[in-house]
Amino acid sequence: MTPDQRLVRGARSRKAITRHAVDVASVTGLNGLSLGKLADDLGLSKSGVAALFRTKEQLQLATVETAREAFLDAVVRPASDAPPGVTRLRVLIERWISYAEQPLFPGGCFWAANLPEFDSRPGPIRDALRRQHQAWLALLADEVRHATDAGEITDPDPDLAAFRIGAVLTAANIAMRLDEPDVANKVRRLLEDFLG
Amino acid sequence: MTPDQRLVRGARSRKAITRHAVDVASVTGLNGLSLGKLADDLGLSKSGVAALFRTKEQLQLATVETAREAFLDAVVRPASDAPPGVTRLRVLIERWISYAEQPLFPGGCFWAANLPEFDSRPGPIRDALRRQHQAWLALLADEVRHATDAGEITDPDPDLAAFRIGAVLTAANIAMRLDEPDVANKVRRLLEDFLG
Repeated sequence: MTPDQRLVRGARSRKAITRHAVDVASVTGLNGLSLGKLADDLGLSKSGVAALFRTKEQLQLATVETAREAFLDAVVRPASDAPPGVTRLRVLIERWISYAEQPLFPGGCFWAANLPEFDSRPGPIRDALRRQHQAWLALLADEVRHATDAGEITDPDPDLAAFRIGAVLTAANIAMRLDEPDVANKVRRLLEDFLG
Repeated sequence: MTPDQRLVRGARSRKAITRHAVDVASVTGLNGLSLGKLADDLGLSKSGVAALFRTKEQLQLATVETAREAFLDAVVRPASDAPPGVTRLRVLIERWISYAEQPLFPGGCFWAANLPEFDSRPGPIRDALRRQHQAWLALLADEVRHATDAGEITDPDPDLAAFRIGAVLTAANIAMRLDEPDVANKVRRLLEDFLG
């Protein structure tokens, strides 16, 4: 193989490993990840996996980044075709419900599973999770701002509105994982009340 | 020692151990508990601690129950002097903010730290956490019902209102752990909007 081919193969392996790591971490948390266990699961050599990530923390950070990409593909990017404001907010909310309900990751929302574990542990993983959480709320706030500017809703504080929407969605994820009935409709009723 | 004295001493030790275990589990999660580590932390013999709890699962269940008692003392019981309805809801919300802000447990809300870890794992611990989560929402729904009956607020669905209040409080706990600014006031503004 040429160096270029090796690079491509390395990048593909990294992607396959971190995508599986996201699934594992959505159930057991990022601390449940181990280079050896992932190698076993995927039929790879432990030394090969270790060469790609070096440390557990590097693996965890790559996993967090892969989760973000999967979330963008499932929830955020499909909404970008919708006009900004209330219409796009509705698409984002429906996509989020599908994301938690289907779910994209076997343990449900990746951030709900991992923020509580890392929010008390300063370091690059907490920083990455925090940045992603803030980006999601900022995205919602932007759409609320569009909706307000277009006169679709009257809301004095887009950040507060985003906090509220995010809170309802996070609570919905927990309720779904606990097999509470009719969660998606609860979310729709609460948010339509606000958007309608 | 008489058998009675031994029983009393055993109960005291259990209480001291589980109270420490709640603090540990609020940071590391219930899976981070170990009989040996708790014995070390408290200067007890591992065999003595093992005799009191027998299995890790028994220790985890006793820890969940101790967390519930501490939460009742900090949040629920102080509100029982307030008249039911909106006044009591306000006391519950303020008590909850203090509980998350101070915080009562070093890792913040015990349920926020542990529900995501156990919601995908059927068994007695998930059942206990789920019961406690439901009891909290039922308590909020009862007070919304009182408030509606007394004509203090007009809300068609107390369960939906409780879901909403619980969602905002849970999101506030995460935001506080992530050192976001001004969280308590966000919560007050969102909930006053609803209660006012």
